[in-house]
Amino acid sequence: MTQTPSMTQNIYDDPDFFAGYSRLARSIDGLDGAPEWPASRAMLPDPVGPRVVDLGCGFGWFCRWARQHHATEVFGLDVSENMLARARAETADPAIRYRRGDLEHLDLPPASFDLAYSSLALHYIRDLPGLFAVLRDAVVPDGHLVFSVEHPIYTAPSHPGWTADATGHQTWPLDSYLLQGPRQTDWLTKGVIKQHRTVASYLNALTDHGFTIAHVEEWGPDETQIAAHPNWAIERHRPCFLLVAARRAA
Amino acid sequence: MTQTPSMTQNIYDDPDFFAGYSRLARSIDGLDGAPEWPASRAMLPDPVGPRVVDLGCGFGWFCRWARQHHATEVFGLDVSENMLARARAETADPAIRYRRGDLEHLDLPPASFDLAYSSLALHYIRDLPGLFAVLRDAVVPDGHLVFSVEHPIYTAPSHPGWTADATGHQTWPLDSYLLQGPRQTDWLTKGVIKQHRTVASYLNALTDHGFTIAHVEEWGPDETQIAAHPNWAIERHRPCFLLVAARRAA
Repeated sequence: MTQTPSMTQNIYDDPDFFAGYSRLARSIDGLDGAPEWPASRAMLPDPVGPRVVDLGCGFGWFCRWARQHHATEVFGLDVSENMLARARAETADPAIRYRRGDLEHLDLPPASFDLAYSSLALHYIRDLPGLFAVLRDAVVPDGHLVFSVEHPIYTAPSHPGWTADATGHQTWPLDSYLLQGPRQTDWLTKGVIKQHRTVASYLNALTDHGFTIAHVEEWGPDETQIAAHPNWAIERHRPCFLLVAARRAA
Repeated sequence: MTQTPSMTQNIYDDPDFFAGYSRLARSIDGLDGAPEWPASRAMLPDPVGPRVVDLGCGFGWFCRWARQHHATEVFGLDVSENMLARARAETADPAIRYRRGDLEHLDLPPASFDLAYSSLALHYIRDLPGLFAVLRDAVVPDGHLVFSVEHPIYTAPSHPGWTADATGHQTWPLDSYLLQGPRQTDWLTKGVIKQHRTVASYLNALTDHGFTIAHVEEWGPDETQIAAHPNWAIERHRPCFLLVAARRAA
């Protein structure tokens, strides 16, 4: 499948990126290797599902977890053939189906899911309102949408990275926050393109498309995590992830 | 009335602060002197009211505006005697009532208001959940709550203020964002105490207390305002105000 200009950058099929991504804790240890997972999990409906779609399913960790937590049908979508191949190799469960799909041009059957979930994928999407319009139709009334993205404070800067002043005090050099649009960064490989938008843009895109905001988290490590990983303490100074739980209007 | 430790710092009755505040554009020109007013106005219900409460009414500019825009009863609350004296002197309208009140310990009659409004006051409040609990009871079902605060990105830093690097490029030195609590700054006078909380804390305090989030704005000047005030352009690099419109659940 050829990538077209209107398609999301498929950085996960870049060999260097994929090799680097595969070495991350979240790739090796799955959900337990993702520091924000406990916070995401707390925002999920209980029980999960029964019918779940995972937008940007990667190696399928969440799809398999959902099957272990009351989901009866799980649909995993990803733009990366590399990711899907690994995901398919990890399970023989016929209730989990994987399909290649571009979240910019998503096609889902109407009123088919009780939970739409997405972990760290939507900041790659240019047409977020278009995606939420699709989800408004695909999620049942009162159904759930739970997603995480890189926090806008994290994606905004023209030169992201901690900066120390003369005394060694570190700050996050925020600029360009209200200037929405693409950001090119070097993460695992050169030229990764993310879409910066404000917190307000994420939330208003939800309320504009039939979702009610249930809970918002600006994630940083908690005390227990900092005790186990003291070098994470700096992450309290600016949130790296934005987590949102929303309900489809009844 | 003596200020007690449990009361909000009443900085507006500090003579230096009050003198400085009285010289601001928003004090001299009223709503039209507040750059975020067009954005706030766009988030108000139309028609306004009919019964309106303004939390931190200051000189009463909004109370008088509401009376000119379909409100039939307007109730202005402020902790500052100085502000209230000016507000009372500006109108003889019997439909506008002013009262001294501390937003930390607010007492309002139940189901009495169609709109609760607050401009740049709630970042002084320690017990925001307590205030929203009072408003849940005081605002009628389907009624409106519209407020502005200093944006958490603006209140967070331990050393707020634009910082230029060696090339002259200016950034906002963000730190301490997830460390909620008091911040002491020097604005108009020394030792002004504001309560820093995250965007998520503002929004979750609403959803936890019977409000549905309708719209969120992270305010910066628009193109027209920058054309008129070129030195405002830097305000696009970090939002200075957070504006929220919410509805009381039916």
